[in-house]
Formats: sequence, structure tokens, C-alpha cells
Amino acid sequence: MSYDPPMSNDDFRRAGHDMIDWIADYWESVEDRPVLSEVKPGDIRSSLPARPPESAEPWSDIIDDVDELIMPGITHWQSPNFFGYFPANASPPSVLGELLSAGLGVQGMLWSTSPACTELETHMLDWMLDLCGLPERFRSTGPGGGTIQDSSSSSTLVAILSARERVAGQWRMGELVAYASEHAHSAMLKGCKIAGLTHQQIRLIPSDADHAMDAVALREAMVDDIADDRRPFFVLATSGTTSSTAFDPVDEIADVCKDFGAWLHVDGAFAGAAAVAPELRFVNAGLERADSYTFNPHKWLLTNFDCSMFYIADKGPMISALSVMPDYLRNAATDKGSVIDYRDWQVPLGRRFRALKLWFVIRTHGAEGLTDFVRSHVEMAKGFDAAIAAHPSYEVVAPTRLSLVTFRHLGGDADNERIRDAINNSGRAYLTHTKLNDQVVLRAAIGAVRTEQRHIDALVALLDELS
Amino acid sequence: MSYDPPMSNDDFRRAGHDMIDWIADYWESVEDRPVLSEVKPGDIRSSLPARPPESAEPWSDIIDDVDELIMPGITHWQSPNFFGYFPANASPPSVLGELLSAGLGVQGMLWSTSPACTELETHMLDWMLDLCGLPERFRSTGPGGGTIQDSSSSSTLVAILSARERVAGQWRMGELVAYASEHAHSAMLKGCKIAGLTHQQIRLIPSDADHAMDAVALREAMVDDIADDRRPFFVLATSGTTSSTAFDPVDEIADVCKDFGAWLHVDGAFAGAAAVAPELRFVNAGLERADSYTFNPHKWLLTNFDCSMFYIADKGPMISALSVMPDYLRNAATDKGSVIDYRDWQVPLGRRFRALKLWFVIRTHGAEGLTDFVRSHVEMAKGFDAAIAAHPSYEVVAPTRLSLVTFRHLGGDADNERIRDAINNSGRAYLTHTKLNDQVVLRAAIGAVRTEQRHIDALVALLDELS
Repeated sequence: MSYDPPMSNDDFRRAGHDMIDWIADYWESVEDRPVLSEVKPGDIRSSLPARPPESAEPWSDIIDDVDELIMPGITHWQSPNFFGYFPANASPPSVLGELLSAGLGVQGMLWSTSPACTELETHMLDWMLDLCGLPERFRSTGPGGGTIQDSSSSSTLVAILSARERVAGQWRMGELVAYASEHAHSAMLKGCKIAGLTHQQIRLIPSDADHAMDAVALREAMVDDIADDRRPFFVLATSGTTSSTAFDPVDEIADVCKDFGAWLHVDGAFAGAAAVAPELRFVNAGLERADSYTFNPHKWLLTNFDCSMFYIADKGPMISALSVMPDYLRNAATDKGSVIDYRDWQVPLGRRFRALKLWFVIRTHGAEGLTDFVRSHVEMAKGFDAAIAAHPSYEVVAPTRLSLVTFRHLGGDADNERIRDAINNSGRAYLTHTKLNDQVVLRAAIGAVRTEQRHIDALVALLDELS
Repeated sequence: MSYDPPMSNDDFRRAGHDMIDWIADYWESVEDRPVLSEVKPGDIRSSLPARPPESAEPWSDIIDDVDELIMPGITHWQSPNFFGYFPANASPPSVLGELLSAGLGVQGMLWSTSPACTELETHMLDWMLDLCGLPERFRSTGPGGGTIQDSSSSSTLVAILSARERVAGQWRMGELVAYASEHAHSAMLKGCKIAGLTHQQIRLIPSDADHAMDAVALREAMVDDIADDRRPFFVLATSGTTSSTAFDPVDEIADVCKDFGAWLHVDGAFAGAAAVAPELRFVNAGLERADSYTFNPHKWLLTNFDCSMFYIADKGPMISALSVMPDYLRNAATDKGSVIDYRDWQVPLGRRFRALKLWFVIRTHGAEGLTDFVRSHVEMAKGFDAAIAAHPSYEVVAPTRLSLVTFRHLGGDADNERIRDAINNSGRAYLTHTKLNDQVVLRAAIGAVRTEQRHIDALVALLDELS
């Protein structure tokens, strides 16, 4: 019985060159495609054969099907007219990093399973510290350090598990209470649920007029909980909320955490990238007092998903929470304790060589290029904010601190939903909504790799048409 | 402030073609490289600049550094002489799937964020059901279905969380007990810890002479626990253990689970892929009674990491455990309940378009090609097993059921460690060890994409030299 590879190395060269060109063509044309996919549920599946093929199919048929069957079902996150959620900007060098990682096909679960995979990652986390002006407590040369997670959901979970571990043996699981603002990302609730907390063990703290956590209310909640024999063990502060990039007062929250012995995790998933620009380092306020921190180059820093930076000031509780060492993973380097084994910093065992894409992005751009990138979006957002503020039918509803603008039509919720749907169904732009003060609010998240001023101008014109 | 991309589309075409050729060249030469990286801890980091670059660097410098600084730190998982752990076989079409996924850069967290990403994934899970002869209860058209996780660690965690959710409100967290064989993967312990169970809530059941779980001992453990007011809620059965591809008696274990109301999760991470060959479907025994099941095409089915199939018979408890719906993720399709939103099937929110690579692998190979691939490794393993059995200095220590051969030198643990290190340090092959019956045992996991009979012959010759 022999295996005859259906794609030889030479076939791979040809198909690979074509695929590279396909992607470059796609990026060149993506601006003209309807941003939001127009298919209905089931359309894609019903176009595919019900059963898998018995025999090998020619590559050309497969690629034709990508164009004909798959592309109609794509919502174009890489379109310069994509303003939904937060951006997921995949720059050309990051895509080449992903390609190289796939071609090498190494596992980074242990240092020994490919030392470069671990060491380049550690190095990139330290470089990012320098690029963003992050606190030295997160540098790998101290008791803490950093790693790449797949998402800030996973980063938040690891922070919760580390905090839980730090108090294990001291407090009972059922006594623990976790806190975040009512505007914290849903990953907070999900992470707490996964870690075994019930809804009764999670407090969503009210926010102020700017949608930032009220630190006084946080303290009061903890006092109440302690009076109730409960144990505050974890606080998530958000630097740049999903709904409106509000900034929780991390420094004041750190005071509360210190007084009550709670772990402070700061979620800067989107906004953290802004810190590459020195004048935007307000996003780092208070971080030097955080136990852990996360932000995502896969959102706003030119690196394709997944690439979430997770920093921790003391890795001890995390390793204790996540390390299990069976015989089949034992090796000399680990036994000596002289290396980092990143499997102990995450939920999965296996891991890809994700540091390559970050290395490519940082080196092709330099600090200057990264800074220009972020600044260009902030500038476009300020201009968009001004255009909305000047429009008779719209208003800006929360301060535009970075590159997300939250705004609404003055007509009410139904008008805003109508406008959102009209924009998205037009194919000319895509944006999503949220709720602030119980009102439907539109979000324009500016940050795609190919977004230029003319795309913002077109969005303003479209909003004007629909006003 | 404008952003000037350092890599234009035309630059990307050139660099991309070069990268494709680099990878093809690498695959052509990987056989001649020392399999295990020879660097010492810190070697890679010390070769890198301490600080990130201020300005953009030319692409040619970066690629030169890949060759000079990174490659010495690579342990070559794609080498035909890699026999460690389990294989992580990255075939050419799967690498192109990863590339396309990165180039499209879409998010599959919700159906609406790119319908094709969700629907192709659902379709591939159903195709895999057909290819492997898996039970109909896992088909997407029923109350259950499947998804792609990053690893079986995550699959196991999702199974544990689903099982925990099913009994929530009925039993208290601290009463729950989970069970697996002493040879279950470390992901079992890790998943239980993450879910908030203590060591006192996990039972590792003894195994029989073939290292398979003793179902009678499982039943006894549950009886004891119930007498102790504890609640058996979860059992992990392994189809193909990491140490020796032992098969737990899933059918007998299912009887016990049924009697005590426990969730049955089957971990076929490595061995499950064998089911593409009808004569190897013993690996599926008892699966029709499992609540959930996982196996990894990223191990032995030509698909680059990450691609772990996770099937569940009733998705209700999982969705209930993992769904959190904030306003900013609400959309019409989800609200109508007419679609799958895979964010509710996993820990992270974001997700890549991983189904593309599986689609490419299945279509380029067809059922026939996949079957040939798996059969070729099983045949090579049988031959290797026979060579070891016939050698005066070695013995096979567990039945070679698929493509993993566990064996040892008759001289004792020190000899086996010496031989393992000598092989690995020779650069000519790479294998890892485990412990069975308290003895150090060598593992030859056959399954790399480019492994041919001559590589097995060379391994036998090397073992003979070292005997």
C-alpha cells in the first residue's frame, strides 16, 4: 500500500503562486465587492455536494469552486468599507508569516519541540513592551512575561484561572466574586462561567456618563460582598470598551483591588494597539499596577487573526493552574527549568508558530510605520466624528478617543436600525450597532488595512443620503 | 497623517511567490536536516536585536534572518524522519487552505460574520462523518453536530463544560466526579482543573494488561463515590492512548455511564483518523453511544495544525454553557435561530476559516487518497513492529494496532534513554518516550506526510547500530 501525494512539490509551487496572485487580486478588488454577504442561511451548503468525493479532484475545479461557491458567502472583513465590530486587519506581511508557519508545521507546545517558536515569541512580547511603552513588570526577564493567545477571550480566561489559583486553598470556590463594568466584553461572563462561577458570583458594576466603570461603586460592591462572607478575587478593567471605547479608571480600580487583595486584569483588546503612538499612551494608564493585561495585534495592528498578546506580572499562579506534566511530554530542558513551555500558559496543548507573523509585521513597518498606521485611523475617526457632529440629523454619542465613532440618527431606534440595514444591504459599507443608555447606537470602527480618507467620505455621503 | 504600506500588492506577489518556493524547497530538503534542533536555551533570543526596529527593514533582510536565525531553532516536524509524539502532518493542499484563510481574513464567530465560514465547516464535519463512518447522531441535521476546535484539549474542555452544565442545578459543583483511565491524555486533568474541579474530584481508573481502562474498576469507583454522596458526571474514554494507542472498551464504559447518568466523551485524537479505512473502523467501536467525540485531522490526516473535529450528540448543554449574547453581537440571523453561531461551541469568540484547509485536503485526496495515506503508515508500522520483534536486543511492549509502535531495548531504562538521546542527537531521526508499567518505553509514531519505507528501514538500521 503506497501513498501517492495528489499535489507534488512542483504542483504546490504552481498552485501556490496562483493562490498568492488570487489573494493579491482579491485585495485589489475587495473594495468593489458588496461588504456584507448577501446569501441566505443554507445557500452555501446547498451548493455543495452532499457526500465527500470518492476520488481525487483536480485542483482547478477546487479553485473554481472557491470563486463560485465560497466567495458569495464571504463578508469582506478586509474591505476598506468594513466598519463593523472591530477591525481584523490582515496585512500582507502577516499573511506571509502565517504561510511560513503553516509550511514549517512545527508545534510550539514545549521549548524543546521547536526552540525558535518559543524564543521568537518571548522576544516579540518583549519587543511589543518597548513598542507600546508597557510596564517593565511584564518583561520576560522578571517573574512574569507574555505569550500569544488566540483571542482575548482566552486571555481573560487564563487571567481568571490564575486569580482563582492564587486564592485556592485559602478561599472556597463558591465564595469567590468577580467584578467588571456593565460594559465589559462578554468574554468576562464566558470566562467566569467556564471557570465554574455562577451568575451569583459575578458583579457588573455601573458605569459613569462616559460608560467607564464607577470605581466607588466597585468598592461598595466589594464591601457588601465581604459583609456577606464572599471573597472578591478578580476584577476586569477595560481599556477601550467594545461598545464605545470607554476607559475604566484603572488606577482607581487598582486601589480597590489592592485594598481587597483582588487580581486586576486589564482588557485592552482593541485599544491597546494605540500605544505604539506615544501621544496615545493614555490607553496604558494604570497598567503598571495590573496583574495581567491583554491586547490584540489581530484587531488593529496589521496582524491576521489569531494574535492576542497576554502579559502577566507573576506567572506562578498561572503555571500552577495550567501545568500538567505526563511522562510523554517530559524532556531535559523542561526538567532543568531553564526554558519557557508555553503549553502551561494556555488552554490547548498544541500551538502554531504565531510569532513569525508578528515579527514580519514589526520589521516591515518599524515603530514608525506602526505609529503612522494607528495615527491615520485616529485622524480619519476625528474627521468622521466632526462630520457627524456637524450633520443636522446625527449626533455623536460617546467621545471619540481613538478610531471608533459611536453615533446615532436623531430620529430614534427604528431610524437607526433602518439606516444600519440600508447601509449594510447597499453593499457599499458595513457597520454594526450596540446599545448605550438603552438606545440603539451605530458604530463606525475605522481600522482596515486599506481604508483611506475617500472611504470615510463615502460613508459620510451614504449616511447623508439615508438621513 | 497617512499610512504608506511597506509591502504593496506587487511586493506581496513577489515575496509570496518566493515564500511558496522557499516552502517547497524546504520540504524537498527537510529530510537532510537534523530532525531535532541543536540549539541551547537562549541561543535564538541572543541572536536577535534586543530592541524592535525604529524604521522599516527590507524584506530580503527578514527572509535572510529566517534562514540564518530561525531555522537553526526548528525541530522538523515535517521531516520524514520525525517519529516523536504524534505526527502533525501538514500537506501541501492544507497549507494552501491556511494561506487562503489568512488572505480572506474573515471572522467566523457568527454565521452572519461570513456565512461560508460557518456553512463550509458544518458541511466538512458532515463529510467527515461519511468518510469515517461515524454515528448519525453527530450529523448536523439532528440535535447535535460538529465543529472545528483548535485542539483536543479544547474539545475535552468543551465536553467537560457541557457535562457540567447538564447537571447544573441538580448537583452541586463540589459533588461532581470525573473519570478517565490512568493513560488518558493530560488534557483530561487540565480540562477538569479549568472547569473548577479539584484533584479530589478526578479518578484515574486502572487499566488492564493492554493499558485499556478496566470498566469493572470504573463501575466500582462510581459505586464508591455515590456511597460517599458524590456524583459521577463525566467519563473520558480514550480510543488510542498517547502512550501506546490502547483502546478503552467504549461499549462497556457506555453501559456504566448509562447506569449512573454520566456524560461519555470519547477522545480519539490520534487514532480516529484511521476510520477513513473501512477495515480499521474498530477505532469507532461504541461511538454510537458517546455524548461527544473528538479526533484531529491535524495529527494524522494531512491537515496542518489546528484542526480538531469535535462532535456532540445534543448541543443544548454546550450552548447553554458557552453562550453569552451582548447587544453588539446581535443580528437577525441569530435572533431567528435559523443558523449556527460557532462562537457558542468554543472558548474563544473569534475564529479562523479553518474548514477551507480540510475541504482542500478532502477534495485533492478523495476518500481513496485519504485511505491510502493511513493504510501506508499502518503497513509501515507493522513492518517496523516485525523488525523490532525479530531483533535480539529489542522488544515490542504493546500491540501495534495502528501506526504507533512502542518498544524498548531489553537492557533497561538507562539503555533506552541512552538510545533515545543518541538517535535524537544524531539528527538522523527523532522519537520520544513514555512510561508503561513503570518502564521507559520508546515510541515510533509513523505518520509524517513524506515518510516512506526507506525512512523506516533507516530507523531500524540506526536502532541496530545502537543496540
